[in-house]
Amino acid sequence: MQINSARLLSDLLELASVGQYKTGVNRPAFSRSDVAARHWLARKMTGAGLHAEIDRFGNVLGLNPNARKTVLVGSHSDTVPNGGWLDGSLGVIYGLEIARCFVENGATDFGADAISFQDEEGTFLALMGSRAFCGDDFKAEIEIAKDKAGSSLKEAIALADFHDGRLLRLDPTRQLAYFEAHIEQGPRLENAGRRVGIVTGIVGIRTFEIRFLGQADHAGTTPMAVRRDAGAAALHFGSKIWESIKAAAGPDTVWNIGNATFMPGASNVVPSEVVLVLQFRETSTENMDKLEAIVHRVADEVSSAFKATVEIARTLNTKPTQMSREIADFIAQAASELDEPAMHLPSGAGHDAMVLARHIPAGMLFVPSIGGRSHDIVEDTAKPDIVRGAEVLLRAVELFGRGRLSHASNP
Amino acid sequence: MQINSARLLSDLLELASVGQYKTGVNRPAFSRSDVAARHWLARKMTGAGLHAEIDRFGNVLGLNPNARKTVLVGSHSDTVPNGGWLDGSLGVIYGLEIARCFVENGATDFGADAISFQDEEGTFLALMGSRAFCGDDFKAEIEIAKDKAGSSLKEAIALADFHDGRLLRLDPTRQLAYFEAHIEQGPRLENAGRRVGIVTGIVGIRTFEIRFLGQADHAGTTPMAVRRDAGAAALHFGSKIWESIKAAAGPDTVWNIGNATFMPGASNVVPSEVVLVLQFRETSTENMDKLEAIVHRVADEVSSAFKATVEIARTLNTKPTQMSREIADFIAQAASELDEPAMHLPSGAGHDAMVLARHIPAGMLFVPSIGGRSHDIVEDTAKPDIVRGAEVLLRAVELFGRGRLSHASNP
Repeated sequence: MQINSARLLSDLLELASVGQYKTGVNRPAFSRSDVAARHWLARKMTGAGLHAEIDRFGNVLGLNPNARKTVLVGSHSDTVPNGGWLDGSLGVIYGLEIARCFVENGATDFGADAISFQDEEGTFLALMGSRAFCGDDFKAEIEIAKDKAGSSLKEAIALADFHDGRLLRLDPTRQLAYFEAHIEQGPRLENAGRRVGIVTGIVGIRTFEIRFLGQADHAGTTPMAVRRDAGAAALHFGSKIWESIKAAAGPDTVWNIGNATFMPGASNVVPSEVVLVLQFRETSTENMDKLEAIVHRVADEVSSAFKATVEIARTLNTKPTQMSREIADFIAQAASELDEPAMHLPSGAGHDAMVLARHIPAGMLFVPSIGGRSHDIVEDTAKPDIVRGAEVLLRAVELFGRGRLSHASNP
Repeated sequence: MQINSARLLSDLLELASVGQYKTGVNRPAFSRSDVAARHWLARKMTGAGLHAEIDRFGNVLGLNPNARKTVLVGSHSDTVPNGGWLDGSLGVIYGLEIARCFVENGATDFGADAISFQDEEGTFLALMGSRAFCGDDFKAEIEIAKDKAGSSLKEAIALADFHDGRLLRLDPTRQLAYFEAHIEQGPRLENAGRRVGIVTGIVGIRTFEIRFLGQADHAGTTPMAVRRDAGAAALHFGSKIWESIKAAAGPDTVWNIGNATFMPGASNVVPSEVVLVLQFRETSTENMDKLEAIVHRVADEVSSAFKATVEIARTLNTKPTQMSREIADFIAQAASELDEPAMHLPSGAGHDAMVLARHIPAGMLFVPSIGGRSHDIVEDTAKPDIVRGAEVLLRAVELFGRGRLSHASNP
């Protein structure tokens, strides 16, 4: 089987025209352009000979009508506000193209189903499409989810009016594995001169709100020695925790202090309250626990040094997810057969594959992001790299199918 | 001469009832309650036998009708929003009481004029009353001044409708010196067990906006080594400059990092821009220059360490102001005659005396602030301390008058 590279690129560009914003795309989940893109995709799937369906949330599934056993190939077509043209759309169009190749090939024993999940980006509720597809019970979250403007997810679902019926569901007796392609969203492939990345796992994420509480005092008349300075505590914490995490970090650990809010925030008032937002990502749960212990220790040290108190709330905790070794090996074998040197790397961002991996073997392939940029209209990948990624992924799906079939016939 | 303590306290409480807010006072400059308080004060001055006048800005001056030579005694009656009942009102009522004592005494050679300046607190334009009274040319600032709600000072002046005529002006041939009493707004007198503070000088203030510029990147997918992290630079700067200023500080140096703003401020995005607000106060200009050089050096160090750039803007620069040694000595002598141990200390906050000191000798007396609290409805001073401060200040004014008259008669 062979990727039709012209068709692949044409489909990607056509999808990018739905909600186009300058050189990027503005297609947040449930927006008018997102709804239009999902209907477009269903029509494309039908045109490709797939049995296409959109469910109530907007998940779009195209089933191979001939095969009893398949793999699921896809990603998500929603974007961040004013995002890039590839991101999850790349994986969705890979899914369409690969599923089409199997239909055209006429195989009946094995094929590919294509999918686009809803709201991976979390406009309302991150990963809601893949979570619903996998049967997660998260009704309570759906009840209360709102976007930044305060609109409720329930209203958005009603307005989008995709479908009143049942939700599409994973069928693990049919869909034996999940293959997801995505842009890297970082510079590692580019810096290493590689066009294909084999994802070893998706990092776990822990986010903390660290609240220092002191006392507001006049910053001119209050002697330094009697202040209870939440700002000084927070700033010292910020630099100390930075250095402490750096010292304890593994090769794939990353961390960020993305926000700090000072209250009351006046030049001449000692800060009474500061909230820092600290996040780290790690491939090992054991290392995550170690880092979290460091956060508590350093926070206690600096808060007592500045006579402030500290409260630490963990606002996000996702576990590291290993990708299927079996699928990674098939991707590596596919790349090798195509003389394409590949690179193993972890994913620093979350993906729908995290959810699927709890139910069926899941694997991911990355293509390079130019300049490492993503979630921005400048996001791009060289067209030959886009084609190459699809070729390797198609071959990996074929190898997987062959492996499973030979396995099934050799009990 | 003798302070009438019952009258003094009664006047203070009566003034506190104008714009009362819980246990404090809400009387921002040009508010309805501020206007009412200034009219109340003019009536009180008239009742005290003074020649009272309110000018277009709301400065209220009560002239001793008998004396050719006087000292000016007063402060400001405007407050911060929901401020305390004393603050500048204490000095204003001291002025009223002391001026009244001289009128009642019938002296014709020397007396006291009482004053309340407008908008010391900077609701629209800090120190505007004393600056206008001293003849500062600041028309351009008046043109553009607005309060936090966006109302213009010019509108506020028109609405207050104090007076259409001329502005009151300092007459340095008549008003030989300025005496201002104020609450300390800090805990030093209380901690030292002293009821009277003699202000040596008012600290200079420099405020800086320190802007770190990096690049927004995905905090999961961007390797630490390639980030240009404005947040990390700002946090390291914050703790380093804290320690560097501490190491270089004089005995009266204070400093504060009162605000930090992170952009875009998301947990999963490397901060592209952070603005820190740093302020220090110092009694020596030489030390201020030294500290400012340290700010630049540390900012350069950390910004290059995190591949960020830095821009430093000095948004406020007031020079340290020495109080008149002559007046300080008279206050010390007065306290000594009354067996009241006094303490010399700098003022960490700005006062109208800063402006007056550029034109005539100016001195300040502090009374203790309970718990060091001010600019808040809990602000308070023990009543015996309020009375004691007035007694010492009256005696100091008498000593000053006697000194000047004997000096004039002994050429």
